[in-house]
Amino acid sequence: MASSATVPWKQLLLNSLQSNSHLKHFSYFQLATVGSNGRPSNRTVVFRGFQEDGDKIQINTDVRTRKIEDLKHCPFAEICWYFTDSWEQFRINGRVDIVDGSNPNMEKLEQREKAWFASSLKSRLQYLGPTPGLPSPSEQPSVEPSLDPSTGPSDAFCLLVLDPDQVDYLNLKSNYRVSFTSTVSAGGSKLWTSNKINP
Amino acid sequence: MASSATVPWKQLLLNSLQSNSHLKHFSYFQLATVGSNGRPSNRTVVFRGFQEDGDKIQINTDVRTRKIEDLKHCPFAEICWYFTDSWEQFRINGRVDIVDGSNPNMEKLEQREKAWFASSLKSRLQYLGPTPGLPSPSEQPSVEPSLDPSTGPSDAFCLLVLDPDQVDYLNLKSNYRVSFTSTVSAGGSKLWTSNKINP
Repeated sequence: MASSATVPWKQLLLNSLQSNSHLKHFSYFQLATVGSNGRPSNRTVVFRGFQEDGDKIQINTDVRTRKIEDLKHCPFAEICWYFTDSWEQFRINGRVDIVDGSNPNMEKLEQREKAWFASSLKSRLQYLGPTPGLPSPSEQPSVEPSLDPSTGPSDAFCLLVLDPDQVDYLNLKSNYRVSFTSTVSAGGSKLWTSNKINP
Repeated sequence: MASSATVPWKQLLLNSLQSNSHLKHFSYFQLATVGSNGRPSNRTVVFRGFQEDGDKIQINTDVRTRKIEDLKHCPFAEICWYFTDSWEQFRINGRVDIVDGSNPNMEKLEQREKAWFASSLKSRLQYLGPTPGLPSPSEQPSVEPSLDPSTGPSDAFCLLVLDPDQVDYLNLKSNYRVSFTSTVSAGGSKLWTSNKINP
């Protein structure tokens, strides 16, 4: 796994997070996928941090949303993350690993559980609600679901892990753009190269 | 063509534009396309208004960017537009018409010219610059390009017109979500229906 020292765009992103952290929406980005009809889909999701010391990006989602269907059809996604205060854009393309409760890998299941407990109680409650995207009855149930803080991940809770292989950085203030591309070495580690390109 | 009166989501969008207009980035959204490699692409672009009285959305771009190649491969795109002050999201899916200087339709060429002159001089100058995405020489040319304000569209200038057929509206403050779907009547006009769905 690539360490942060070998991931040149990660430091740029950490700097952007820092300089925009006073904004509520600084951790929101848009995730594009391809649907089974071949059309693109695009929605806002929340950055849930890097996985351990690497460059993989974590996102929480509901297994009942259409993005899961999209990612099963085409496992690639592109993040577009625009920082409204520093005028910087990161486009991060890579393969997404879907980690739901049926995942056979114990280590991944532990990461999913960790992501669940790292979420607010209010966020966790959403996974107990009705299926996203389905018709909503006009009369809402009067009983709000409740959840014991020690209860583990709901069946609907899913961790997405995006493994970047291409990053495009654009700074609109300085009109500076860099393309970062990864290759996988014979030993299986990811190597990043960067090229300054025209904005 | 659908008039604004028959486009139920357009009034919602106009309201959001109004309530977020104090923010510099209120007119920025993310446009997702599908590349010829089958992977999604996603980038920030600027809303250039609705076409005439209808619901078609205008975007200016450079014909030399990769999104043109993407749209020639797959003409569908999805806009994700998150309004950071009102916590509203619009996902707008539709087919994109590419209107470059070689377009045979006179009316479309006029729309392109109108879009060119509606842009700032600074925006227009970008189309005279080096090809976006190509390697950038370390030494920049010392001569800045100049442009006569009465000069018509540069060859690189391209108008994109997205014709929406599906819109998903989400309000994160009220936890309210509506799906708008269009059908085309026998007479060729677009009819919109809406359904409240679970967030």
